[in-house]
Amino acid sequence: MILTLKLDVTEKQIQETITKIEELGFKAHTSRGAQRVTLGVIGQNAASYREVFEGYDWIESITLISKPYKLASREWKKSDTVVSVDGLEIGAKRIVVVAGPCAVENSEILLQIAKAVKKAGATILRGGAFKPRTSPYSFQGLGEDGLKMLADARSETGLKIVTEAMSPSQVELVSRYADMLQIGARNMQNYDLLKEVGQAEKPVLLKRGMSATVEELLMSAEYILSQGNKNVVLCERGIRTFETSTRFTLDLNAIPVIKRQSHLPVIVDPSHGTGVRSLVPVMAGAAVAAGADGLLIEVHTEPNRALSDGKQSIYPETLKETIERIRAIAECLGREV
Amino acid sequence: MILTLKLDVTEKQIQETITKIEELGFKAHTSRGAQRVTLGVIGQNAASYREVFEGYDWIESITLISKPYKLASREWKKSDTVVSVDGLEIGAKRIVVVAGPCAVENSEILLQIAKAVKKAGATILRGGAFKPRTSPYSFQGLGEDGLKMLADARSETGLKIVTEAMSPSQVELVSRYADMLQIGARNMQNYDLLKEVGQAEKPVLLKRGMSATVEELLMSAEYILSQGNKNVVLCERGIRTFETSTRFTLDLNAIPVIKRQSHLPVIVDPSHGTGVRSLVPVMAGAAVAAGADGLLIEVHTEPNRALSDGKQSIYPETLKETIERIRAIAECLGREV
Amino acid sequence: MILTLKLDVTEKQIQETITKIEELGFKAHTSRGAQRVTLGVIGQNAASYREVFEGYDWIESITLISKPYKLASREWKKSDTVVSVDGLEIGAKRIVVVAGPCAVENSEILLQIAKAVKKAGATILRGGAFKPRTSPYSFQGLGEDGLKMLADARSETGLKIVTEAMSPSQVELVSRYADMLQIGARNMQNYDLLKEVGQAEKPVLLKRGMSATVEELLMSAEYILSQGNKNVVLCERGIRTFETSTRFTLDLNAIPVIKRQSHLPVIVDPSHGTGVRSLVPVMAGAAVAAGADGLLIEVHTEPNRALSDGKQSIYPETLKETIERIRAIAECLGREV
Amino acid sequence: MILTLKLDVTEKQIQETITKIEELGFKAHTSRGAQRVTLGVIGQNAASYREVFEGYDWIESITLISKPYKLASREWKKSDTVVSVDGLEIGAKRIVVVAGPCAVENSEILLQIAKAVKKAGATILRGGAFKPRTSPYSFQGLGEDGLKMLADARSETGLKIVTEAMSPSQVELVSRYADMLQIGARNMQNYDLLKEVGQAEKPVLLKRGMSATVEELLMSAEYILSQGNKNVVLCERGIRTFETSTRFTLDLNAIPVIKRQSHLPVIVDPSHGTGVRSLVPVMAGAAVAAGADGLLIEVHTEPNRALSDGKQSIYPETLKETIERIRAIAECLGREV
Repeated sequence: MILTLKLDVTEKQIQETITKIEELGFKAHTSRGAQRVTLGVIGQNAASYREVFEGYDWIESITLISKPYKLASREWKKSDTVVSVDGLEIGAKRIVVVAGPCAVENSEILLQIAKAVKKAGATILRGGAFKPRTSPYSFQGLGEDGLKMLADARSETGLKIVTEAMSPSQVELVSRYADMLQIGARNMQNYDLLKEVGQAEKPVLLKRGMSATVEELLMSAEYILSQGNKNVVLCERGIRTFETSTRFTLDLNAIPVIKRQSHLPVIVDPSHGTGVRSLVPVMAGAAVAAGADGLLIEVHTEPNRALSDGKQSIYPETLKETIERIRAIAECLGREV
Repeated sequence: MILTLKLDVTEKQIQETITKIEELGFKAHTSRGAQRVTLGVIGQNAASYREVFEGYDWIESITLISKPYKLASREWKKSDTVVSVDGLEIGAKRIVVVAGPCAVENSEILLQIAKAVKKAGATILRGGAFKPRTSPYSFQGLGEDGLKMLADARSETGLKIVTEAMSPSQVELVSRYADMLQIGARNMQNYDLLKEVGQAEKPVLLKRGMSATVEELLMSAEYILSQGNKNVVLCERGIRTFETSTRFTLDLNAIPVIKRQSHLPVIVDPSHGTGVRSLVPVMAGAAVAAGADGLLIEVHTEPNRALSDGKQSIYPETLKETIERIRAIAECLGREV
Repeated sequence: MILTLKLDVTEKQIQETITKIEELGFKAHTSRGAQRVTLGVIGQNAASYREVFEGYDWIESITLISKPYKLASREWKKSDTVVSVDGLEIGAKRIVVVAGPCAVENSEILLQIAKAVKKAGATILRGGAFKPRTSPYSFQGLGEDGLKMLADARSETGLKIVTEAMSPSQVELVSRYADMLQIGARNMQNYDLLKEVGQAEKPVLLKRGMSATVEELLMSAEYILSQGNKNVVLCERGIRTFETSTRFTLDLNAIPVIKRQSHLPVIVDPSHGTGVRSLVPVMAGAAVAAGADGLLIEVHTEPNRALSDGKQSIYPETLKETIERIRAIAECLGREV
Repeated sequence: MILTLKLDVTEKQIQETITKIEELGFKAHTSRGAQRVTLGVIGQNAASYREVFEGYDWIESITLISKPYKLASREWKKSDTVVSVDGLEIGAKRIVVVAGPCAVENSEILLQIAKAVKKAGATILRGGAFKPRTSPYSFQGLGEDGLKMLADARSETGLKIVTEAMSPSQVELVSRYADMLQIGARNMQNYDLLKEVGQAEKPVLLKRGMSATVEELLMSAEYILSQGNKNVVLCERGIRTFETSTRFTLDLNAIPVIKRQSHLPVIVDPSHGTGVRSLVPVMAGAAVAAGADGLLIEVHTEPNRALSDGKQSIYPETLKETIERIRAIAECLGREV
């Protein structure tokens, strides 16, 4: 960590800062430039003391040399992490397709969709039993009944199940039914929830917040990892920008950026990421070309009647074509679907 | 709600849409333009059925005529809401200053700060006992011990207390100690938490998410209001933009925009909103000129030693000058501090 | 175009608006909902009169039914436009690779790079003779000398040449040397420049502004098309967002969005779009998977010595690998490189 | 300037970098931390060589210690610059109100508006003769005829005149009529235009680009200053964010930020900055409270008939009230209107 001091810093202030650095157990490394003085703070974990120095009036700026996350970093673990979802691997050679309705609506429709996505080539079923909705007047999900329907669909089809937990007190319940716990974008910085799933036995699908930087996403992963749960899959799902032709701006750059910084697998959600049904197949292909380890796609047999997000749900036939498209791209890049 | 149909829509699809509109209990109003057909969906609450129509392939776009929130709207309640925090009014003529440290650190420092901010003119003490922190390795707050210290500071000074609840299970505990419950920016769309404070007896300070639109902020307020808690104060605290010279971009436009759309009081947090100590006094003044009903300001007697956000905390003397500044502005606009 | 009137609109104001609509030669179509009155403005080109109505106090909002651009729209011209750059087609089955240094530095290095990119598979040489630079103290380009070096490189290699014109008065000069005129991102809304290249004989490469919506990009294309120049190629080059791990956020969603709205070819610049050398090959592949008709890539034989943007320039060997990668992806999607 | 090297940098690469630093005439200052090596580049103007180092593979990041602008910086000139517009001062104690129509439409309306804004308290008349318009089909301005009408309005009223030049070739013409040259937001990085007005005799009003950082605004000012024209007034006019309740997000934080970094005067345009007529008076007051040296306000006697931007134009009576409001605020802050 490097502290750049203000032009008018006094010798007394420089000394006070050095004393503080040494008090904290670090070495201070002073560099006097043509105009400026900078102080290096040298030692393990110096970055985590950043805030101590932010309060000093005479410090112009602070530069971090190390990343603020550790367990999530590529430096900590060089090899790619492969996460097992009840035996199904995410992050290995095979690209995984997670598909299903936005919300679980009833057992009949869910089973119909589950069979259809399995036939199309998906291996994990998604579907919300607890739904974070912008409006208190929108359908809020079926709760535990929805979880049971998911479990039934698993029995019938052999698909694995991923579904969202919205608050710490739901984690135990959702863990009983699901193979993988989803943390939604709006909860990416719900730290009590992150700590709770960090202590769960199930792998976690952590969605990027709509205005979270890649670094913040990795910090949220660090919360989970630091509690002992090593099975975290990250998910890019679109960020909020000024552009309005898509609901969010799916940020595919995040995939290679994360791959450089972290060992964790990354999947992409082109359904929420674009919010437009007709863009899903082409952006799914682009995501695979950008290095995604999997896709999370909303599918509904009757999107016009879906209780939420029908606008971005594709038909099972379109899923089949999408999987053919991504398979072709995956194979020419040495991967499989 | 107006549905604009695609250029190549068929007569059969138009009829199917009209049938659906009527099934839902609305009147359909067809308008055939030079090129386009549009369908008006006429009746109370049509907007809440928006998603039903989003799934239709032949609908190009949907335009809402009414707002998606109701209880939070100025149309629902014309007069300004005044929220009572144990007798202290927010939203009335007098502008309220909430001040205190970012986090409660120990009882001695807290009391020192509490006395100082009271002397400077603040009437509510802020301070986090539960702290949402980006890093799992940062100070996470003192929990209930911190709440007790806040309650002690109240006894000593007579200041009211506002502090954050981070998860539904903390609401009851925090309510026991605090006069007002704070929902942090990262939890603005933590819907289980919103529902919980919606059932609490205490007023709620709801901070705008860093990438939330004004409409989304009002939708989150609607969650609380719809549970029966009518005492909601909104707080602008900076949004995330491309600009990096400030930590966030304090969006003062939001104040008059909210005042037009909603009857709820609005306060402003220039400390988080700018992230820069030296900008706090001037932006506090600008906030009052923009119509703010109060200010939320981080104050510390020793910002250099603060365990969090020292960079943006001001000294008690600066708070005093800031309050003099805003008092002058308030008075020339017919308000008081 | 639909005008939604305010709740408290008077009958007199409604009539005044209808009169205005009819004065302008349109038909007014009145719809009276449960709460609101809306007025449809029916007729060709109604949208271009939007501003006339924006000034009315009693109009709550205005919804455009048609797009504000015409010649650039897919509705105007259904089939894909193929632009010829001195015989080389952009927008046809073959994906085009434009490569070269950020700036033309001297004839020797330029020729070295030109030969290298040709060998790697590029067919158009890029290189700036006039350089828009953030700092007045940075290298500003060689001007006409640079143009001559580009022309010499063309004679030697047979590559086509694209280079930027920064102001209306340069257009004639640049047209004398270049096969294609580039409009840079910072000049996307330099309307005098757009009009000038709209009258030039050469095809135009129009880069998206860093904060321009897709609609604004198409409006800028409309400027050029409306002057008679039908040969416009659009270029996505990254937008400005809050994310800082890349210099800009390359917005690949823009490709399928543009393809739906417009008939014009689209190429992608992953060099400026990410600003990070190591991300260029993978994002180039993702761009092709997203439907790009070409790529614009910065290449330098000695990036460490480049006078500008060396950070994002790749080596010729990396270009070769990149082209192999995109060829594989292109072929599995039925295209060629 | 500090270069942070990658973890796996070799001793040979470190030496090569040091050699380069010394070749450029700087001193290299090596600091070896627990994990990282950093190199300080010490000497005047090191920052302007930033790009030389950006191309090095083994450099992880580059930190600027000095600002990239010089003549625009507060460090270069400590005292506030006061710009004279034909004798009228901007940046002194008195806050200046610039008002007028968006576009000059005809001499009669212009004169009517000019008289009205003068009566309300404005001292400079604004109005576009050359108009940058998103659509090629919108009114493009009256050109030189418009300039003559402005000059006539000056003769009649004694108001000073500011109007926009859109391309280098217009600068001489506009200078003949105007007292101050405006550079519009879309042209903030039109460098040929900046250089041209940098050589003009008239003061320049430089508007911030809608997605320009404060640093980029100051870099554009540096272009003008470096050509010898010392009379630059900056203008905040709203930035592009995700928020849609206002047309742009007026960024009042920019005012105190600029005041810290630069000696140049700053004025604010709440008309473009919000795009909503009813927000103009309150945001004008907030701008003055934030330290603005002036305001740029669109006024029209018949906004409903304005040929452009009527939506955000206020009536002369509202201007009068607005000026009374800002006068009250200004006076309690020790300034005048």
